[in-house]
Amino acid sequence: MDRAPDYESVGWGFDSPQAHFSSFMNDVDFMQEALREAEKALNKNEVPVGAVVVCNGKIIGRGHNQVEHMNDVTAHAEIMAIRDAEKNLSGWRLTDCEIFSTCEPCPMCAGAIMNARLKRLVYGTAQPKFGSLSLSCNILDNTRLNHKIEIKAGLLEKESSELLKNFFSSRRDG
Amino acid sequence: MDRAPDYESVGWGFDSPQAHFSSFMNDVDFMQEALREAEKALNKNEVPVGAVVVCNGKIIGRGHNQVEHMNDVTAHAEIMAIRDAEKNLSGWRLTDCEIFSTCEPCPMCAGAIMNARLKRLVYGTAQPKFGSLSLSCNILDNTRLNHKIEIKAGLLEKESSELLKNFFSSRRDG
Repeated sequence: MDRAPDYESVGWGFDSPQAHFSSFMNDVDFMQEALREAEKALNKNEVPVGAVVVCNGKIIGRGHNQVEHMNDVTAHAEIMAIRDAEKNLSGWRLTDCEIFSTCEPCPMCAGAIMNARLKRLVYGTAQPKFGSLSLSCNILDNTRLNHKIEIKAGLLEKESSELLKNFFSSRRDG
Repeated sequence: MDRAPDYESVGWGFDSPQAHFSSFMNDVDFMQEALREAEKALNKNEVPVGAVVVCNGKIIGRGHNQVEHMNDVTAHAEIMAIRDAEKNLSGWRLTDCEIFSTCEPCPMCAGAIMNARLKRLVYGTAQPKFGSLSLSCNILDNTRLNHKIEIKAGLLEKESSELLKNFFSSRRDG
């Protein structure tokens, strides 16, 4: 599971896709890493959404939206990060893990987050048209599901939403 | 897109994972193919759920549950079939396609079905504990989503549910 390098030698600028960070990182730091993932999507001309999965204060999964690039409607940032974490853990149960996403997850990603039994979701900007909570989809807060998840919304909301606004604005401008 | 063999030479027992069938197949035939996928899951000791994606009367995607085998919580039958179809079509929009699943889709799969813009969902047995409709998850019937999907439930329900019952019964018996 733990493929972490020597944390002492890992600086803030460390830029490996498999990077694990020391447990002194906090929510804002993890969301900034999710934003870095979103920028990777932007560089591929994809809707800029990014996510990281964190276990015991370390990043164990990273993902960014790659739907167009991979021709795969399931290649949303959250699902890419979950798959990456599963690979690194060699298991699909992410019971003790948290996910940080720059955007409110869509119903598909919300379902994946519940299926993977993540204990906490932190997201940046709400998505009124596509977000699971915004659409009242009754997934992350379904009282009939055994699994309960803690949710924190609006972290680095401005940074996350500006990435999206600029992307869609540039698309409209051709 | 069309990797179909010569349909004249394709019998009912044709057993290739890439099999395409002539348009004289009907809903029951497609669900029987989904059941064959479910049996593949059973043979891997996975919860037996199978799915096929159909376009213009031809199967263009197949999938069976492989969560344990692949250590991937997103490897549900419906998502595997959608990804297979996307690969065969070289595109993620399955606008003119139908999906046949032996089980009522969970919220994650229901979200993927909506994201892929499938036009029709046919499923076998309901899943009171995990199914998106059974859990009132407001995805497949969300009035705020632009995409509308036609749903047919209960096709070959008995065959689909017996596969599941036998699987869980044999697990309980050790």
